[in-house]
Amino acid sequence: MITLYDCATAPSPRRARIFLAEKGIAHASVPVDLRSGEQLGVAYRQINPQCTVPALRTDEGMLLTDNAGIAAYLEARFPEPPLLGETPAEKADIASWNWRMEFEGLLAVAEALRNSAPAMANRALPGAVNYPQIPALAERGLARVGQFFDTLNERLAGRNFIAADRFSVADITAVVALDFARIVKRKPGEQHPHLLRWRVAMALRPSMSL
Amino acid sequence: MITLYDCATAPSPRRARIFLAEKGIAHASVPVDLRSGEQLGVAYRQINPQCTVPALRTDEGMLLTDNAGIAAYLEARFPEPPLLGETPAEKADIASWNWRMEFEGLLAVAEALRNSAPAMANRALPGAVNYPQIPALAERGLARVGQFFDTLNERLAGRNFIAADRFSVADITAVVALDFARIVKRKPGEQHPHLLRWRVAMALRPSMSL
Repeated sequence: MITLYDCATAPSPRRARIFLAEKGIAHASVPVDLRSGEQLGVAYRQINPQCTVPALRTDEGMLLTDNAGIAAYLEARFPEPPLLGETPAEKADIASWNWRMEFEGLLAVAEALRNSAPAMANRALPGAVNYPQIPALAERGLARVGQFFDTLNERLAGRNFIAADRFSVADITAVVALDFARIVKRKPGEQHPHLLRWRVAMALRPSMSL
Repeated sequence: MITLYDCATAPSPRRARIFLAEKGIAHASVPVDLRSGEQLGVAYRQINPQCTVPALRTDEGMLLTDNAGIAAYLEARFPEPPLLGETPAEKADIASWNWRMEFEGLLAVAEALRNSAPAMANRALPGAVNYPQIPALAERGLARVGQFFDTLNERLAGRNFIAADRFSVADITAVVALDFARIVKRKPGEQHPHLLRWRVAMALRPSMSL
């Protein structure tokens, strides 16, 4: 049985949850309490020395410790429905936009949050090593989140999906990044009509309530 | 004819050059002079509004503007030799390590360089938008580069390749990140024997002189 080490309140494991749901893959879930620091404790460190969620244990026993590995594995093992594209052009468009959603969206919000939240002092980066907060980086993160909304809005003018004219992992990463931005009190407004329309359409997919 | 918009001195286009060479794909190259800011000029902006290299024009006319899209496209169009893996387990291992080499290696060096070099004032991030330098981020980048060497060295103990027991895009990204670190005066030392052995072996591949 595939097992997902998960946390209901964090953005990265949500990407894996939605991906699994869109593929319709049966799996077990094990909650990891990030608020109490369970990911840094001895027990979880033995499961995943990187101290991060999501982690996915395959039914062959391999442990995948990030969304890049999880998506590549699940797409190859369970090709239908395709979430990484079918043709070379689709695969390229989806890989590129997924990367941008991660770098320009998720990372920007994470920079803003992790470098400012009192509860995350010394946790400016995820993982086993502690890094102190950099206030100027929190500020830059917020500026980049605004830029991310503008980029998405422009991209979605006349489109129903972020990439390749079909639902893909790029939409999943974009939804997760967009919703994650609420934690730093940023959300799209009336100047982002295409983005808001797309988000309403995405909400019709049952996976997006996960 | 596939065309690569390239820059001989920058790490990101080098990843695309090596990938093309390992696949043996004939292509044209157009140099873009990053030192004079050609990527921000009107002419290049019309080719790639994101103002970054590499950019790859496919023979069907599609423009791919980052290594994520370029690797996905080339692997699908020219499957041999595979650089992203063949089995689900290989694809997962390679995608995960490639992502780590990018996030923990390339980004760490870029943070250290772009937030300290006088020539990169206001160019703390690549792309069309200017962001001021953050000195503390340069310092953190250097700490992360040291961590990156340690991670790679540990990973390569008893291995010839970063992922999946075969040469892959993860090795390409790792070589490029490692060599890029010289620009911030960091290189692995005698405490990194596995990393040094692997780098010597990688140097035997003609693509790595590109």
